[in-house]
Amino acid sequence: MPLSIHGYAAHSATAPLGAHQFERRDPRPDDVVIDILYCGVCHTDIHQARNEWGRSVYPIVPGHEIVGRVSAVGREVSKFKVGDTVGVGCLVDSCQHCASCNAGLEQYCEEGATWTYNSVDRHDGLRTFGGYSERIVVSDKFVVSISDRLDLKAAAPLLCAGITTWSPLRHWNIGKGSKVAVVGLGGLGHMGLKFAKAMGADVTLFTRTPGKEAEARRLGADHVVLSTDPKQMAAVARRFDFILDTVPSPHDLNPYLNTLSLNGVHCLVGLLEPIEPPVQAGMVVLGRRSIAGSAIGGIAETQEMLDFCAEHGIVSDIEVIDMQEINEAYERVLKSDVRYRFVIDIASLKRAG
Amino acid sequence: MPLSIHGYAAHSATAPLGAHQFERRDPRPDDVVIDILYCGVCHTDIHQARNEWGRSVYPIVPGHEIVGRVSAVGREVSKFKVGDTVGVGCLVDSCQHCASCNAGLEQYCEEGATWTYNSVDRHDGLRTFGGYSERIVVSDKFVVSISDRLDLKAAAPLLCAGITTWSPLRHWNIGKGSKVAVVGLGGLGHMGLKFAKAMGADVTLFTRTPGKEAEARRLGADHVVLSTDPKQMAAVARRFDFILDTVPSPHDLNPYLNTLSLNGVHCLVGLLEPIEPPVQAGMVVLGRRSIAGSAIGGIAETQEMLDFCAEHGIVSDIEVIDMQEINEAYERVLKSDVRYRFVIDIASLKRAG
Ligand SMILES: [Zn+2]
Ligand SMILES: [Zn+2]
Ligand SMILES: [Zn+2]
Ligand SMILES: [Zn+2]
Repeated sequence: MPLSIHGYAAHSATAPLGAHQFERRDPRPDDVVIDILYCGVCHTDIHQARNEWGRSVYPIVPGHEIVGRVSAVGREVSKFKVGDTVGVGCLVDSCQHCASCNAGLEQYCEEGATWTYNSVDRHDGLRTFGGYSERIVVSDKFVVSISDRLDLKAAAPLLCAGITTWSPLRHWNIGKGSKVAVVGLGGLGHMGLKFAKAMGADVTLFTRTPGKEAEARRLGADHVVLSTDPKQMAAVARRFDFILDTVPSPHDLNPYLNTLSLNGVHCLVGLLEPIEPPVQAGMVVLGRRSIAGSAIGGIAETQEMLDFCAEHGIVSDIEVIDMQEINEAYERVLKSDVRYRFVIDIASLKRAG
Repeated sequence: MPLSIHGYAAHSATAPLGAHQFERRDPRPDDVVIDILYCGVCHTDIHQARNEWGRSVYPIVPGHEIVGRVSAVGREVSKFKVGDTVGVGCLVDSCQHCASCNAGLEQYCEEGATWTYNSVDRHDGLRTFGGYSERIVVSDKFVVSISDRLDLKAAAPLLCAGITTWSPLRHWNIGKGSKVAVVGLGGLGHMGLKFAKAMGADVTLFTRTPGKEAEARRLGADHVVLSTDPKQMAAVARRFDFILDTVPSPHDLNPYLNTLSLNGVHCLVGLLEPIEPPVQAGMVVLGRRSIAGSAIGGIAETQEMLDFCAEHGIVSDIEVIDMQEINEAYERVLKSDVRYRFVIDIASLKRAG
């Protein structure tokens, strides 16, 4: 018997989100049923709610930074038991047999991963609905453990903002001796600073806004460079091994490329749109630099990150909101008026319609 | 007493190249004096002769694919002796102490390498002149040995076209099991096919022109894909680990990026201009791909390449011309009407004015 679920949904690209009742599947043998405690608010939620990528099918229940407690498990599930604290990120399934899946990088599944919302379950063909809701049902392969040592509400953003910055830093072997720069100080950027610092790198924040020094240092930056100041930019020419670029809208990469050392990598994690203005090819040719990209992370590395966070006491800086405040929160996200991530207290769903 | 040298020079951006007499420095203790036998014709020669990069200082004696015989050595030179067959490529000096130089990658010298022509010697401040001439004087650190087992005239293009394709293939660890694609079948592209094949890779040529199959296979391609045919492009989606892009003018990278596997690298070796039309960031983010660049190669790896060529019998496919035919050759290079590199027989300089 399918589960009836309360949540919040977008019913069109232009309507505000509102209360919505929907069904989730009867748990399958490998499923974990999770009572959601907290769900982070990701910029992707807004893109999808407003059909900015042109692929939204309504109603959409957003949310892919999910922390909750296990309330039931299917008969084949041995990794989790009722009462466990767990998380679900951007992925809830994948083909499980392509080269990417075999490498533990399900986000790059060659047959297409199943996303946590606005996607179609590959077994029953039903649409997926995300974490702006009281409960979710997910295959145990896509559920991760979260230590109760962490502040659970502040851990929610680790499931997307966290892994999106962790995965490239790990892939490009950031550690002691690395010189890392982070572009942008938002939900992703502030996690990038924390992780790069905890990994032992010498960390710089590139910002377009003066006066962020103290805040950046608190989050892990050793240096702050005003990217609008040509003198400061010239002073860091050829300095960085790795630039983690979290900016979600088109911007000029050329001034940043000039700050990369030989073999340096400029990694995009927030952008899907055209790279404009155009990159000067000479900026990569003369210095053997690369412009790379990275998307979220696989399940195994998400678990690795969460364990690292538990060990190092790392969580996101957050502002907790009630479900009913989501539309106002979206407006504030669009103005970058949040330090640094909104997290919905899902208990608020029960308090009012 | 400075050496008086016959050669060919451009005297302005618009004048044809013509006979020119000039001086070279009195050999220094570490210098090798080389009687030039052959010099390849690189597209860069045309850019510089015509001031297309805006940095030409006239007169310019082009030529950086130089093969010759040692006619004298300075007193500190022990690596070379009179009569040795040697080569000189794009570089004749560098700072010798920066991180790039220490890594054997003098082409990325942080203080700026000294180029074989249209550059300034870092010791005496005199301008450098290239291989369209009877003799050149070069520090022994920038001279490489060439096996007499190689056809010397066909070896000349190895010094630029060869190393430019060799260096990235080596840096990105191409070998048995690699799936490599080469974009463009010119002076660089045809060397890319030969090297990738000799390294053990499965090699594909991307071409915009039908009918190149037999020729491409002769040069080392296992497969040929018509890049203007969407069906053929779709059939190789996610196939390649590495794309060696030798195209020297702006072109759309997006269709090629789609053919890269997870972690695949699209490496530019022929382009310095803006990358237009713009790359879709999603093409690198979704698949953790990279757009990279690579410029020629260092001296140690140039020697490594030449030794590999001697062992595997690899040279360039060439058309030999007299010095007096250079202006016509330039026009043919611009029409891609050469298979695959012009090489000047420098003996022709003595035959006529
Ligand atoms: Zn997200
Ligand atoms: Zn898969
Ligand atoms: Zn060249
Ligand atoms: Zn140097």
